Amino acid sequence: MLLKKDEDQLALPGRFRLEKCMDTRAGREKITHFDVRAEAERLFADLEQTSTDSVGITREAYGEGEQEALKLFESFGRRFGLETGVDDAANLVVTLPGKDSSRPAIVCGSHMDSVPHGGNYDGAAGIVAGLLGLARMRHENVVPEQDIKVFCFRCEESAWFGKPYIGSSALFGALSEEDLASRHRSGHERLIEAMARVGADVERISRGEPLIDPSSIAVYLELHIEQGPVMISRQLPVAVVTGIRGAIRHRRITCRGKAGHSGTVPRWLRQDAFFATAELISTLDEHWRVLLERGLDLVITSGIVETNSREHAMTRIPREVSFSFEVRSQSTDALEAFYHLMQTECAAIERSRRVRFELDRKLYTAPAKISKAWIDRLMATAEKFGIKADTIPSGAGHDAAVFANAGIPSAMIFVRNDNGSHNPDESMEIEDFIEGAALLYHTLKEPL
Amino acid sequence: MLLKKDEDQLALPGRFRLEKCMDTRAGREKITHFDVRAEAERLFADLEQTSTDSVGITREAYGEGEQEALKLFESFGRRFGLETGVDDAANLVVTLPGKDSSRPAIVCGSHMDSVPHGGNYDGAAGIVAGLLGLARMRHENVVPEQDIKVFCFRCEESAWFGKPYIGSSALFGALSEEDLASRHRSGHERLIEAMARVGADVERISRGEPLIDPSSIAVYLELHIEQGPVMISRQLPVAVVTGIRGAIRHRRITCRGKAGHSGTVPRWLRQDAFFATAELISTLDEHWRVLLERGLDLVITSGIVETNSREHAMTRIPREVSFSFEVRSQSTDALEAFYHLMQTECAAIERSRRVRFELDRKLYTAPAKISKAWIDRLMATAEKFGIKADTIPSGAGHDAAVFANAGIPSAMIFVRNDNGSHNPDESMEIEDFIEGAALLYHTLKEPL
Repeated sequence: MLLKKDEDQLALPGRFRLEKCMDTRAGREKITHFDVRAEAERLFADLEQTSTDSVGITREAYGEGEQEALKLFESFGRRFGLETGVDDAANLVVTLPGKDSSRPAIVCGSHMDSVPHGGNYDGAAGIVAGLLGLARMRHENVVPEQDIKVFCFRCEESAWFGKPYIGSSALFGALSEEDLASRHRSGHERLIEAMARVGADVERISRGEPLIDPSSIAVYLELHIEQGPVMISRQLPVAVVTGIRGAIRHRRITCRGKAGHSGTVPRWLRQDAFFATAELISTLDEHWRVLLERGLDLVITSGIVETNSREHAMTRIPREVSFSFEVRSQSTDALEAFYHLMQTECAAIERSRRVRFELDRKLYTAPAKISKAWIDRLMATAEKFGIKADTIPSGAGHDAAVFANAGIPSAMIFVRNDNGSHNPDESMEIEDFIEGAALLYHTLKEPL
Repeated sequence: MLLKKDEDQLALPGRFRLEKCMDTRAGREKITHFDVRAEAERLFADLEQTSTDSVGITREAYGEGEQEALKLFESFGRRFGLETGVDDAANLVVTLPGKDSSRPAIVCGSHMDSVPHGGNYDGAAGIVAGLLGLARMRHENVVPEQDIKVFCFRCEESAWFGKPYIGSSALFGALSEEDLASRHRSGHERLIEAMARVGADVERISRGEPLIDPSSIAVYLELHIEQGPVMISRQLPVAVVTGIRGAIRHRRITCRGKAGHSGTVPRWLRQDAFFATAELISTLDEHWRVLLERGLDLVITSGIVETNSREHAMTRIPREVSFSFEVRSQSTDALEAFYHLMQTECAAIERSRRVRFELDRKLYTAPAKISKAWIDRLMATAEKFGIKADTIPSGAGHDAAVFANAGIPSAMIFVRNDNGSHNPDESMEIEDFIEGAALLYHTLKEPL
């Protein structure tokens, strides 16, 4: 439904002038000319060209690739007569002004940066979808009740400065001194220096001052490619996210036993650090299986395992095995319960195998609550427009978690994507993207 | 019991002259003057001094430390009027000539080399015990029926040229071209060059020609420190070896699954190489436990395990885990049965977890059969002389395995040793050594 507006109602100070658009046959015809697919393909192609690396896509946070993406998105916004600006954290903000800009804005967005040698869609898809939605509304002369904004965040990937969600966290004064002092992966520039270089107000950011009033945002909606294989497996082009998993992690758990000659130490005298670690992992895997059957949301990973290369040998019982450990869940209770289980199993194995498990600092990331009302709204909108969708959890973290944890109702749309993310092989079909972008468009347009 | 001999009976060509020794009170008193403990302590101390490294003991095969040990043993033999010579593989041979040198000799021995930064007793203890036995017999004017020899082998440790038992294998023409071409751990000299340098007949050795007639040896007895913790745990100063474990090994088994984001891939879609490996190890550990209860001789070790450091990360499901695998047993059947079990479990896990296990070349070392008759004789001798001993298997390989596999009746005496071997902390009590050396002495003296 197009809004019938007078030109005057839209004449906001310093803003572009909207051409008159009546709800006429001519107006409706014009709509059909906004070719979402062509616009999306062009934007993705242009974006790819600005940031193609020898392998995959590299849009370095606060670096050239991110800057080129920003320029591209800014010029796209301008081409469609949208407002563009940069906030105090140097994120790009593209706005379709509403009738009453004092009302809390409807916000969508995602991030501009990629991991090194990543893919073209992780982050960018959400921005492109938002921009296309605004452009289409603008094209269709939709004038919303309140401003609709696309936030194009910088530095969401932890690959650059160790910590993720920098651009969005800065908005809520959520970067610590330690965060700002962290160095770029190259070891050179500090985060605060990089932010200052691109024009962020690092004085306010350093003081932990919020750059935005959370109450000025009615909702944050983020479209993102799925980074796992669930939608491919379930043949689901679009999904609505039920929650963003938090995590308890240890970078390094060291199991210490006793070295020994592999031929001469009988089983009853062994203190084999690897057999102990294998028992721990197998036992936790079995707990995991059982807890999933009981309906808990859980994923468990040990991405790194290694014996000590300075001393290990084929014919030596390993004295030491180090491994990383991570449990993720949408539920804080499930996280803590599984963590407790892990500690209990460690203690049992320590007794039975005479080894020790040494845990480094426990790293905690809180799960982010997705707004139940917005999940329902997204699912209802999908149904209304014939978009095949179901709910799934988000295993990866997103800027949406920052908004959710700042108390802003937040929700996410996932688009099917093959081969995971953070690699050059990520593979999103444009048809799936168009479905997801349509869901975003309709929700932005009639949000409440 | 001392043998009462005439001087003439011992006058062998070119040999030392034995002083007269009658079985009189004076003669018996003289016996008490051969202070085994003092001689052993001095020999071990001298030996330590020739080969003390910055850390522990280093007697490099075909290198300075081994050469110094050889000189020391040779001069010890000469001091006690024993024959000394070097065989065609450049091993030192010390002989107490018997009445009839044409009869098959009674042979004992062990190796002169150590691992880098090892201990003073691994290898040397067997030589010192043999030399002390011969010296004592010589001192006591014992003239055996046949020659009694101590073989002081070079290069038993695989640490130097990759392959173990070089000095003893050379005697039986058991070194392949590939073995002889193998390079020193430094990457420089080849084995054949090192052997030639110390005077070995590398032409015959290269042709695989036996340098010794197995039928010229009646028995090979080797005293060695235990390299495991069994005798410490069982409070056993001396043990008689029941068999030398063989092994089936893989240097590298690679479990290949599929990488994925640790947060986004649910359990049912994972192909986690580490969880699969942990399941394999845990399952094999359980089989091991059950098979031990059924009386099988088995030890299982994975000394090395590692995810691929070029790609592993705390938040990435590991695509690849590599690990070494070894099973050892005194029984060929037990080795093959366990190996088959391992393959079966790999196949089951491949199906259930959609991973693959890739096994590199299967390395096989045959178990060495210890002579049952000699085990009984050693145990009977121990009992007769009040030496506390029991039987245990040898998990490590020894020169004795080379003799056994050449068809020569072979047996071993273990002496209790703390902290394992191949490290500077190996710790043998001199009292235990004297007990073991006494068992060797009495067995050499009255072998049949």
